[in-house]
Amino acid sequence: MSTLDLKTARTVIAAARTHGRSAELKPLTVVVLDAGGHVVAAEREDGASIKRFEIAVGKAHGALALGMGSRAIMARAEQQAFFVAAVTAAVGGSLIPVPGGVLVRDGAGTLLGAVGVTGDTSDHDEAAAVAGIEAAGLTAQVD
Amino acid sequence: MSTLDLKTARTVIAAARTHGRSAELKPLTVVVLDAGGHVVAAEREDGASIKRFEIAVGKAHGALALGMGSRAIMARAEQQAFFVAAVTAAVGGSLIPVPGGVLVRDGAGTLLGAVGVTGDTSDHDEAAAVAGIEAAGLTAQVD
Amino acid sequence: MSTLDLKTARTVIAAARTHGRSAELKPLTVVVLDAGGHVVAAEREDGASIKRFEIAVGKAHGALALGMGSRAIMARAEQQAFFVAAVTAAVGGSLIPVPGGVLVRDGAGTLLGAVGVTGDTSDHDEAAAVAGIEAAGLTAQVD
Amino acid sequence: MSTLDLKTARTVIAAARTHGRSAELKPLTVVVLDAGGHVVAAEREDGASIKRFEIAVGKAHGALALGMGSRAIMARAEQQAFFVAAVTAAVGGSLIPVPGGVLVRDGAGTLLGAVGVTGDTSDHDEAAAVAGIEAAGLTAQVD
Repeated sequence: MSTLDLKTARTVIAAARTHGRSAELKPLTVVVLDAGGHVVAAEREDGASIKRFEIAVGKAHGALALGMGSRAIMARAEQQAFFVAAVTAAVGGSLIPVPGGVLVRDGAGTLLGAVGVTGDTSDHDEAAAVAGIEAAGLTAQVD
Repeated sequence: MSTLDLKTARTVIAAARTHGRSAELKPLTVVVLDAGGHVVAAEREDGASIKRFEIAVGKAHGALALGMGSRAIMARAEQQAFFVAAVTAAVGGSLIPVPGGVLVRDGAGTLLGAVGVTGDTSDHDEAAAVAGIEAAGLTAQVD
Repeated sequence: MSTLDLKTARTVIAAARTHGRSAELKPLTVVVLDAGGHVVAAEREDGASIKRFEIAVGKAHGALALGMGSRAIMARAEQQAFFVAAVTAAVGGSLIPVPGGVLVRDGAGTLLGAVGVTGDTSDHDEAAAVAGIEAAGLTAQVD
Repeated sequence: MSTLDLKTARTVIAAARTHGRSAELKPLTVVVLDAGGHVVAAEREDGASIKRFEIAVGKAHGALALGMGSRAIMARAEQQAFFVAAVTAAVGGSLIPVPGGVLVRDGAGTLLGAVGVTGDTSDHDEAAAVAGIEAAGLTAQVD
């Protein structure tokens, strides 16, 4: 597989949400993008605010745009906020520079897509994304 | 319920996709928006082209924008295309005026949200959306 | 290969341009997008007008957006112009519904990306795109 | 010559990429804009993330927008980030204020266009751009 298919995306989302419930997180929104940055599947839990989908997409899309997990983009923003703001504009606005946007790779290191989670703290969002990715037997890149 | 919850949205999507497979349709993309027009859940089947998610959202969002199923919007476009084009611009670009965007109501007639389906012919897309909505025990409004 | 790499993209562009010169076409602009719709390579010949790059991208991106060559999108526009206009808005503006946007597939039928050509008549643009794709040993889908 | 022609642009790109390989840089994306800010040629190396083309254009376009290399724009952003953010909005979103966007002048000092490189560190991106420009016998302006 060279990109995330729907079956895998649904597995990732289900596992991320299960992790969220186990960890007693706030309502999560989980999106899965393919390697080209396009939505494959998404679920916004009841009680999540109205723009959580867009925020989750922004975390995942930003990660794919720059080729690094959103935690690394946050580190860049802490050093050069104006750079990350400019990249956000250049890519059309869909980039959220905090943890929760995690790249997905297979065992050979091939980039398959990205997962975006939002709803609890960024660290917890990221943990849910990682849980989902690993439940699908894939590798999570948070930086 | 006054808006589509995630459990219901997932039921709708699963049933719409099952209908698609039974009817041997092309890969479908199914999105469910809540009464406020915000994504609750979405699935893009393997083989669907890269912007089918945006098109499915456009069908559902357009229906909510005007308060009528997208089949009715198509009828309007056939009479006054410039009006529908203007509404598309006014609502930010997310309105697709062909069948496949179906409003969802409960037994009392309360508007709960909308479903958008794309991937096969518009008539077939709409039939899949209706199948999904009715499988959830709700009422589909195609006009 | 599951997407167009740079080496192949450059081969396609070179062959498309060579075709253009042999056929004595006006200055051509040739762009190659990967399967996700992102620019891999592009060349705008001297004398081409200033927005030919954007137009070439629009032809290729529109083809990928809908999963059909731009000649087929033109046929759709001739039947339902308001539909194609709406899809253009929904995908962010980058869709040009005339021939010259050609999907690229490998021998197994896998979609690898798309080529967009503009500068001469649409039919000639399309012919140049096809020449480029076939020179790279790949399959061109014009509809 | 009063603007970068395609032959020169391709020479610049080839030399910038050769420099990148010699310096063992990460995959580079190189774009060449003419004096009017329009894409003449572009190449995104395999492994470069999906939005590197837009970022490379942003570096070059921003340089032309303000009439200074992007290193100088970064210095300005360090002093008045809100000014650079505003300029980015005013020019439509395509301005990246870090090194890698280099103006191209001929021996007489005439502005011919700009080169944008991204993919490695900004300093290394800029060095690749300069190498490309100088290989074409032209003058690079990084500030």
